[in-house]
Amino acid sequence: MSNPTEPTFTNISALGEFGLIRQLTSDNPTVQPTTLKSIGDDAAVVENDLPCTVVCTDMLVEGIHFDLMYTPLKHLGYKAVIVNLSDIYAMNAEPRQITVSVAISSKYSVEAMQELYEGIYMACKLYNVDLIGGDTTSSPKGMVISVTAIGQANKEDIVYRNGAKKGDILCVTGDLGAAYLGLQILEREKQIYLAHPGVQPELEQNQYLIERQLKPEAQRGAIAYFKKSNIKPTSMIDVSDGLASELLHICSQSGTGGYIEESKVPIHPDAERMALEFQLDPITCALHGGEDFELLFTIDEKDLDKIRYMPEVFIIGEITDKEDGVKLHTSGGNIHDITAQGWNHFRES
Amino acid sequence: MSNPTEPTFTNISALGEFGLIRQLTSDNPTVQPTTLKSIGDDAAVVENDLPCTVVCTDMLVEGIHFDLMYTPLKHLGYKAVIVNLSDIYAMNAEPRQITVSVAISSKYSVEAMQELYEGIYMACKLYNVDLIGGDTTSSPKGMVISVTAIGQANKEDIVYRNGAKKGDILCVTGDLGAAYLGLQILEREKQIYLAHPGVQPELEQNQYLIERQLKPEAQRGAIAYFKKSNIKPTSMIDVSDGLASELLHICSQSGTGGYIEESKVPIHPDAERMALEFQLDPITCALHGGEDFELLFTIDEKDLDKIRYMPEVFIIGEITDKEDGVKLHTSGGNIHDITAQGWNHFRES
Repeated sequence: MSNPTEPTFTNISALGEFGLIRQLTSDNPTVQPTTLKSIGDDAAVVENDLPCTVVCTDMLVEGIHFDLMYTPLKHLGYKAVIVNLSDIYAMNAEPRQITVSVAISSKYSVEAMQELYEGIYMACKLYNVDLIGGDTTSSPKGMVISVTAIGQANKEDIVYRNGAKKGDILCVTGDLGAAYLGLQILEREKQIYLAHPGVQPELEQNQYLIERQLKPEAQRGAIAYFKKSNIKPTSMIDVSDGLASELLHICSQSGTGGYIEESKVPIHPDAERMALEFQLDPITCALHGGEDFELLFTIDEKDLDKIRYMPEVFIIGEITDKEDGVKLHTSGGNIHDITAQGWNHFRES
Repeated sequence: MSNPTEPTFTNISALGEFGLIRQLTSDNPTVQPTTLKSIGDDAAVVENDLPCTVVCTDMLVEGIHFDLMYTPLKHLGYKAVIVNLSDIYAMNAEPRQITVSVAISSKYSVEAMQELYEGIYMACKLYNVDLIGGDTTSSPKGMVISVTAIGQANKEDIVYRNGAKKGDILCVTGDLGAAYLGLQILEREKQIYLAHPGVQPELEQNQYLIERQLKPEAQRGAIAYFKKSNIKPTSMIDVSDGLASELLHICSQSGTGGYIEESKVPIHPDAERMALEFQLDPITCALHGGEDFELLFTIDEKDLDKIRYMPEVFIIGEITDKEDGVKLHTSGGNIHDITAQGWNHFRES
């Protein structure tokens, strides 16, 4: 008899690969009318109702991108979907379908996989996206999740990174740096826990920061606003590696320079407070933290009035000539070069 | 100074993630006119020139799906693409684009990744497919490759697993069991090598079998023939898990029975010989071996004359009533039930 206070652990080998896939996808209703064939054939089939298909993919590796000591599997599943939807929105397109492949070692139970898929389905439901395919396999060690998202768009609506031009206004959809500080808190509590296993983590007062790290959202509202207000950004990218890195991508691909006004960069009060607690400069966290999944975009000056009514938007800078470089105008009146210092997993290892 | 007889080993950390991606994708011309945006933005963009998009994905894990002791990285890259193209052809669709994500540990060099991508590009070139996106990241241990393939098709041309009906003729595009026997040879030579490191492997006389395992091809010719000859199979699937398992999928999804004539199942003479050497029944290898990546399909009786002129096709059985079950008619005149005994990585581990 199993102990009622302990979670059930069903070995995945008891179900086998096909059995596990059946179990995880038995309750998977599709909501997109364009999903003609979901899981269950050699491939899924999607009806093209707009002229272009937009595709992106992302791989998350245990021990590199996530630490299961402080990442609930449900949150992990949710986030794995969100990071891909965010990339589709960053093209000014609507995500419609995803495929999810997971490799897991025998340390994971059927229940653990169900928890992961609960998070995946939760993201699908909230964002009106269908899970239409994937692969579930074993791994000698750890977990790897690979998600591919597809969406559809009109050709003329798609926004690339390379369309910014001098005089365009640089905007971001929300506050930056919080996800990074959430990660620092989780890492700190992990170290404390490892040293003193009895100590309960202090997470309550940092709920906002931790949620930004563990349960990010994709900026569908921004895309809906652009459509409704007839605005087409001149360039756009999602903030996954950090504001600095993303602005450098836009400027290098557009062949421009640009600047950010430090005082205009939105930073949540909790992030400010926690940055100081960690003896970090809040603007450094915002510039290089990453994983905020806000959208960084540029608009033509003529659209400035339209953008002012956008529910969540911050005007943080401007696009300049290439020769002017990519700069930070500090609150103290200085001008610094912006360089990329984002996370580089290969250098860390 | 490096030893000229040893291959160069450049640490991936010397390039970093962005540097590595740049290196691997700097020479990646696209050939599909429908590829509007390839690698380099938040997502890739494909123009829809037919009414449907077909999508499939597959994950290959080191130590589960491949063993680098006898799998050259170039072949691995090639095969990772082929298994996905095969799934798109199995829908009677044309693959056009792929995305590739790779997680690798620090034991791999930049040169090793280049070899892997050489194989990927070789498959792309041969099958007229564009590599339009992906992800390259580090892993704590081993290598994981995730490929997603997309293609386009007319809605009415797409062939599912569930369309077979009583009286339909069961066909396969090529010989079966060889890939499995190739794997057995490689495993045997590995064990010999581990026991006696000086011994050279005996692979020459088994070239056909080993190539079927290490460098499979996808059956684009069959799809082209169907189109040219105006044939639409009633159901189709690619042979990845073994003939038995695939026929069971077709019959269960179509709500039918079916039988295979043992004497009609194409088995290469080298596979026959090697099966006997391993004291295996050749038909068992054909039924349960898998990884042949031939297409198993059914056609309406009225198309029988058209199919006779197909360059590579074998008529191996017929679809029957559900009540008749799924059977093997042996050469000795017996009738056996067909059951799935395909590879189950979860049960193995």
